[in-house]
Amino acid sequence: MKLIPSPFAPAHFPDLPIVHGVRAATGSRGFYAARGLTRDDVFLFAFDEGTSCAGVYTVSNTASADVLWCREALKSGAGTASALVVNSGNSNAFTGPKGVLKNDATLKAMGDALGVAKETCFIAATGVIGEPLADPNYVGSIVPELAARLAAPDWEAAARAFMTTDTFPKGAGRSFDLDGTQINIAGIAKGSGMIAPNMATMLSYVFTDAAIAPALLQELLEDITDETFNSITVDGDTSTSDTLMVFATGACGMSPITSSDDPRFEVLADALHAVCLELAHLIVKDGEGASKFVTITVKGAVSSQSAKIMACEIANSPLIKTAMAAGDANWGRVVMAVGKSLEPIRMDELSIWFDDVLVAQNGSRAPDYSEAAASAVFAKPEFTITVDAGVGDQSHTVWTCDLTHGYVDINGAYRT
Amino acid sequence: MKLIPSPFAPAHFPDLPIVHGVRAATGSRGFYAARGLTRDDVFLFAFDEGTSCAGVYTVSNTASADVLWCREALKSGAGTASALVVNSGNSNAFTGPKGVLKNDATLKAMGDALGVAKETCFIAATGVIGEPLADPNYVGSIVPELAARLAAPDWEAAARAFMTTDTFPKGAGRSFDLDGTQINIAGIAKGSGMIAPNMATMLSYVFTDAAIAPALLQELLEDITDETFNSITVDGDTSTSDTLMVFATGACGMSPITSSDDPRFEVLADALHAVCLELAHLIVKDGEGASKFVTITVKGAVSSQSAKIMACEIANSPLIKTAMAAGDANWGRVVMAVGKSLEPIRMDELSIWFDDVLVAQNGSRAPDYSEAAASAVFAKPEFTITVDAGVGDQSHTVWTCDLTHGYVDINGAYRT
Repeated sequence: MKLIPSPFAPAHFPDLPIVHGVRAATGSRGFYAARGLTRDDVFLFAFDEGTSCAGVYTVSNTASADVLWCREALKSGAGTASALVVNSGNSNAFTGPKGVLKNDATLKAMGDALGVAKETCFIAATGVIGEPLADPNYVGSIVPELAARLAAPDWEAAARAFMTTDTFPKGAGRSFDLDGTQINIAGIAKGSGMIAPNMATMLSYVFTDAAIAPALLQELLEDITDETFNSITVDGDTSTSDTLMVFATGACGMSPITSSDDPRFEVLADALHAVCLELAHLIVKDGEGASKFVTITVKGAVSSQSAKIMACEIANSPLIKTAMAAGDANWGRVVMAVGKSLEPIRMDELSIWFDDVLVAQNGSRAPDYSEAAASAVFAKPEFTITVDAGVGDQSHTVWTCDLTHGYVDINGAYRT
Repeated sequence: MKLIPSPFAPAHFPDLPIVHGVRAATGSRGFYAARGLTRDDVFLFAFDEGTSCAGVYTVSNTASADVLWCREALKSGAGTASALVVNSGNSNAFTGPKGVLKNDATLKAMGDALGVAKETCFIAATGVIGEPLADPNYVGSIVPELAARLAAPDWEAAARAFMTTDTFPKGAGRSFDLDGTQINIAGIAKGSGMIAPNMATMLSYVFTDAAIAPALLQELLEDITDETFNSITVDGDTSTSDTLMVFATGACGMSPITSSDDPRFEVLADALHAVCLELAHLIVKDGEGASKFVTITVKGAVSSQSAKIMACEIANSPLIKTAMAAGDANWGRVVMAVGKSLEPIRMDELSIWFDDVLVAQNGSRAPDYSEAAASAVFAKPEFTITVDAGVGDQSHTVWTCDLTHGYVDINGAYRT
């Protein structure tokens, strides 16, 4: 089926900086040829020696063969990376022994072409679940050709190569000064269904030429993930292939950051956080069928975790998501979602705002409730739902989109 | 908006038996007049002296004022019931002190009209959340008139009076012999959105002229609920008003059952279970926008509870529900849902059937997988998804419907 572009699609792909120490090439292995599409569907990234990496993966019990490999490589390679190969069109999930054979062949091709150790090679795949590849070397066979074409990354080409039901390529970046050294960060991401904590169903890769020790980078990435990629949801479904990785080449020439006490750490952390948040928001804005981008904050909770659970119940409720789609300011359904979370609240202290319009206060409809004012908020393409649970001072924010006819259409036709 | 009747709507309301000791009347309080509809929206039931009752209510932290009252009355009245008043059109949930005033007025009207104690009176309301009634006696004011018209129940009229987005009235019943005494059971239910364990968002009342001690009836009802109303889901949303009650008048003339060792207990239990299951299925078949009725069984689990969690993840996945709607036998999404449940499985032992078509076996696609055979199952209006988790011998079954354009339409327009 023809995908209708998200209303939030940016006019053009952002200008992302050159990240020193990173080379890339994209190509087509023909995964989409059967659907009559001529497009790239594989990319290879190669990293300078000494590149640190960190990764966060799906928590699913049916994780893909690729995810299982990456978890193992992250350990056995001690957080060093030399190459990355990702394909779209087939997720290599639930493919049993055949999935492992595909990985072995791909990893061997990477090692042979680049002369690097297997445990420094990372892979991922996204697409239909459960369709084993007839030829284990289907992806690996294009690696030599890609390796011969490695060059400074064309970020947009890479971002396009791993799109599935995405309607626009997603990228974000930053360049900033760190003690006289220019640091560059570029990231790409793909969605756009099976998006829920933990993790958002997606693949995302962030590249920087900063220098940072692997263990510290891993710790930082996990913290960032909690407030970015693990705080978005499109449909509450968690994928078998979710992957977020950061590669830090150190090619900018700075001395490595090895401790969070290093004053440069916070600057780098903030920049990485900003890039990850931007990519996470782009995934929601390209959520399947999305017509609204909604920020949901729960405050006054006993803990940040409790606030997050309540915010996710609101964000994942099909009744609230369809009301968003229709522009129906049905705040009673927000009450329902908070109630079904079973998290601690005080109903007689519970208040709800749509943007800055108070719709419910102290356990019932706000005294000066205005249907017109509430509806005006829900008519906007982007708005905020805020809930005060009335029991504490902790909060959390998640981001979601609405549930539209487009979602029903896209997901009924995904495999065709 | 005009609701399109469910394809599962029965040709006619079933013939339900006379249940001795139960009288009823329905009437219109005008809740739907604003929408141009002339229909009944309130019913009153009155029970002979000595009627036992049992109830199961929403676990929501934002339960309606009516639910809070019923929980209290069930305790303070020690499981005896004399009357029941239910209205549709307004849920009296999240209405703060005004909600309590409405209940007080309704309960006073019931007590005055029937000369019965307040704590034997039960109430419920279903409809839009959070809209307080301007007149606390809005419902109570019709009670005297209804009390004057009490007669043998017109079950269909009652079942119609509490419909909201339901497209057909729901009833089920049984008559059977118990040691020479004829026992009659009649039940009614309404859905049809906000349907999920615990509980299905719905109201359901079952009436019998059997005689059974209140504590035993309560225990029995809780057991039955787990395998019926708490094993259905339409959208994963839990309501603020869910209520299931059983009233046993004892008017058939039998001696009361006071122990589960009484040989008559199992017979009555089985009949009540069958009626509740039938009503629960009818709710799913009238799920908002439903075009498919799907039975989901997870077996080979470490516990029945674990099997239920996995079955619910499958049943509530928007990706699976949209695939059902489109007739797309996307079994990889079943793998996804099992994986995200985080319940114990063995991926290399995991198998999946659509009806009796084996689609996945031992952790990958079945060797003789047939897309045509799998698609033929998903094209049917009713089918079964079975998963073997490969780690134990416990199982559980849940029932659900698909996610269609109809659901998006209905829930975008619910308040208008």
